[in-house]
Amino acid sequence: MIDGSVLIGSQAIRREAAFHAVDPATGETLPQGFAEATAEDVARACALAAAAADRFGGLEPRARGAFIEAAAEAILAIGDVLVETAMSETGLPRVRLEGERMRTGNQLRMFAAELREGRWLDATIDPALPDRAPPRADLRRMNLPLGPVAVFGASNFPLAFSVAGGDTAAAFAAGCPVVVKGHPAHPGTGELVARAVQRAVAEAGLPEGVFSYLPGRANALGAALVADPRIKAVGFTGSRAGGLALMDIAARRPEPIPVYAEMSSINPVVLMPAALAARAEALGAAFVGSLTLGAGQFCTNPGLVLAVEGPDLDRFAAAASDALAGIEPPAMLTPGIHAACGRGLAALETRAARLATGQAASGPNRCSAAIFSVSAEAFMADPALGEEVFGAVSLIVHCRDLAELAEVVAGLEGQLTASLQLDPADEGAAAAILPLLQQKAGRVLANGWPTGVEVTPAMVHGGPLPATSDGRSTSVGTLAMARFLRPVCWQDIPDALLPPPLQAANPWQLPRRVDGEWQA
Amino acid sequence: MIDGSVLIGSQAIRREAAFHAVDPATGETLPQGFAEATAEDVARACALAAAAADRFGGLEPRARGAFIEAAAEAILAIGDVLVETAMSETGLPRVRLEGERMRTGNQLRMFAAELREGRWLDATIDPALPDRAPPRADLRRMNLPLGPVAVFGASNFPLAFSVAGGDTAAAFAAGCPVVVKGHPAHPGTGELVARAVQRAVAEAGLPEGVFSYLPGRANALGAALVADPRIKAVGFTGSRAGGLALMDIAARRPEPIPVYAEMSSINPVVLMPAALAARAEALGAAFVGSLTLGAGQFCTNPGLVLAVEGPDLDRFAAAASDALAGIEPPAMLTPGIHAACGRGLAALETRAARLATGQAASGPNRCSAAIFSVSAEAFMADPALGEEVFGAVSLIVHCRDLAELAEVVAGLEGQLTASLQLDPADEGAAAAILPLLQQKAGRVLANGWPTGVEVTPAMVHGGPLPATSDGRSTSVGTLAMARFLRPVCWQDIPDALLPPPLQAANPWQLPRRVDGEWQA
Repeated sequence: MIDGSVLIGSQAIRREAAFHAVDPATGETLPQGFAEATAEDVARACALAAAAADRFGGLEPRARGAFIEAAAEAILAIGDVLVETAMSETGLPRVRLEGERMRTGNQLRMFAAELREGRWLDATIDPALPDRAPPRADLRRMNLPLGPVAVFGASNFPLAFSVAGGDTAAAFAAGCPVVVKGHPAHPGTGELVARAVQRAVAEAGLPEGVFSYLPGRANALGAALVADPRIKAVGFTGSRAGGLALMDIAARRPEPIPVYAEMSSINPVVLMPAALAARAEALGAAFVGSLTLGAGQFCTNPGLVLAVEGPDLDRFAAAASDALAGIEPPAMLTPGIHAACGRGLAALETRAARLATGQAASGPNRCSAAIFSVSAEAFMADPALGEEVFGAVSLIVHCRDLAELAEVVAGLEGQLTASLQLDPADEGAAAAILPLLQQKAGRVLANGWPTGVEVTPAMVHGGPLPATSDGRSTSVGTLAMARFLRPVCWQDIPDALLPPPLQAANPWQLPRRVDGEWQA
Repeated sequence: MIDGSVLIGSQAIRREAAFHAVDPATGETLPQGFAEATAEDVARACALAAAAADRFGGLEPRARGAFIEAAAEAILAIGDVLVETAMSETGLPRVRLEGERMRTGNQLRMFAAELREGRWLDATIDPALPDRAPPRADLRRMNLPLGPVAVFGASNFPLAFSVAGGDTAAAFAAGCPVVVKGHPAHPGTGELVARAVQRAVAEAGLPEGVFSYLPGRANALGAALVADPRIKAVGFTGSRAGGLALMDIAARRPEPIPVYAEMSSINPVVLMPAALAARAEALGAAFVGSLTLGAGQFCTNPGLVLAVEGPDLDRFAAAASDALAGIEPPAMLTPGIHAACGRGLAALETRAARLATGQAASGPNRCSAAIFSVSAEAFMADPALGEEVFGAVSLIVHCRDLAELAEVVAGLEGQLTASLQLDPADEGAAAAILPLLQQKAGRVLANGWPTGVEVTPAMVHGGPLPATSDGRSTSVGTLAMARFLRPVCWQDIPDALLPPPLQAANPWQLPRRVDGEWQA
């Protein structure tokens, strides 16, 4: 059911319609109106979240995991209306949204499983040493949830990184209530998912403040949420400007809080000489496949290609140009993203040479894919060339040699990914470049393309600024839970007052490190 | 040997003497002059540190652990001149400094052992699933060091939290080169330790940039160090104003970096009713023991006592007053700290009632211990009463009942510690207050006093602002390593190019999590 309500705790509050979504594929405004949540709504959602925090954070992992799994079931049970609503609000194709729905469910289930495994608590017990001089107290440590988390979903993943996406799943797993600021580009999709989560909270018998959903367009709404003293951390996926604005608000609070913003990355791809010589044409075609996937609207889109100039690179460029010429531009996610892509392209025209162009737009909100070319010298002299253009737009940087290529890498900003295309003969040279890539990126990959991010324990979707606001973390994969935890030490606290994972009897049977040794 | 040099990498650079230490016990200026490191020194030390980072960070844990242990040996081998120099520069007694020297060595050794244990790498392998549709890549994750770390030592721990103290030990263990800004109050002590570490670096055959030492008094020196683009994290122990200034510099860099500042805490102690009734006198005497230890110059000094008003609290106050009357004030660490303590006392005089005073000062830089008293209502109305006065100064807050006491706790800023004095009959009421204390502090303790911080895996010396700049971390205990690490994921990278802990053969035989299961 979609009626444009604000969902606060167990309530659905109808208000006058303040905004509508647009179908980007047609450019038409959709009929359903949506409320704009108010400052009072923010305060009420945060108060309920704070009231729910101790009970939710103190639940046995099995119980919290069961709730998260029930939320996944409830989302999958929404049925086809979820996919159809998302299609109309985002222009994304059915097969992509069905896959994303499956991923959203799997992601929630994976966090539930990780939660039950229990190692994330890092329960550590250093027994008392009463006979030592001076005696040592009994010291017990584990992680506690930070408290209520504000989540800002992404436009480009209306399911997997929105209302019940990765940030919400990680915060729930850590034991944090969540207040979602709904993305205004897909408000119907958001409301459907939010109502499913709301039902799961009620059916699990949890305090209503575990989850609230605040639709709205105004920046002031998000600002009020981040400024609320009951919010203890922020998860955000979106633009660099948006992330930096939230970081600034969070840093200027009387009690600053961590902001985990995933913002901007051009995902350099290094074509090593032997690989380029051996398979320039195949690499060119595969590059265009990654570049134009989903209209290039992925944070891991390969926006920068680095290689040594010469005939092999020319073959790569020719193959990429050929492949690009066949690419029809699908509608982008929002008119705003489409306009920004156009501005980015116009800026590139003045700074680099256009090498290739995809097919012309045949409808609203389409941006023809484009590849530009520039010398390493020019690239290093113009920091604007290193800025992300969100869309199917990439820049090939021609380096004189591998030393200049390494210099380009050393000058890059932080990245989500860095890729190497290499053959065995390249390994020696790659060994010198890899440490530079590791410093710049959260994930380095070989002989693949950066789009496509697995949700697993080993994944890191992070990296230094501007890729994210905090390069010590990940927003994809089960390690994302760690962002919403803090360690606390209990010294000589009576057993009955300890949290169960630290009690002598270990009633929840979770793994603990006792006197230096892990006991599974 | 002490000659006032700046120590950059393997070099000792003599310069004109720019400052001298003061013996706080006598107020006399000590004869040895010390250089003030320059902006060029900062740049050179950071360049060497950056050049050393990959090799030092990539060492096998056994090798880096051996270096850290050799550094501990070198410090212990300095001999009595280290203790005597520290005595003259800090006014701290011999027995305290001998104990602190032992702690410094043990702390380094404990980090070396934790490093070898290897779990801190969090090596995680999700094998490829080539037959899945779509296939899953091979994903391998582990922690990498952040890079060069700037360390600012504390005045109150000239050995255990200074040049080769906790922050340096944690950064070394994580694999980060360290550039120390020497504390100007104990420059001779600092130089002795720095020369020992410098020798250990050379004898281990490590790149000279692993360690540099920059003595100096000017704020600009520390500011230049934090602003240097090659520095990737900061460890600081000191005042709230100093920590906030460094946080601000770090946040305004083109690439912001984490600052781990341990700043300010008043360490609330809650006296529960049954415990107070049963042992008011003993608690009063023990409280004064903790309060006046080391002239109250501990970050965990009990600066705030909370209890329900009545005859039992009056008995506690009387016992504390009696105990305090016998306390002779030792010299404080520096004339600046002494002056600040005087200003703090003067401010308290206008806001609270003086309850008790220690013996009068009989020499320079002494501050008579003092206990003040105030109603909960007045305390909550005056945020200045919640600010730390560094020294043997505490405030007893009289609450009408436990509900008002909980209200006081809920309004406190972040703390390093929060303590409960409780008897079994108090456990029910304590269960309601403990969650509030856990939210405010990194360590909660029962029936002890907050001074005295064990260095163990379970310790947390942290807490929300202003206790520290980052309540998700600890500056004491082996978990402190985590502050200087970030996760990186390697996808389909050829085995020979992987860091050894992720290679198929696991050549360093470290524990890894493979396909979800830990393999020790």
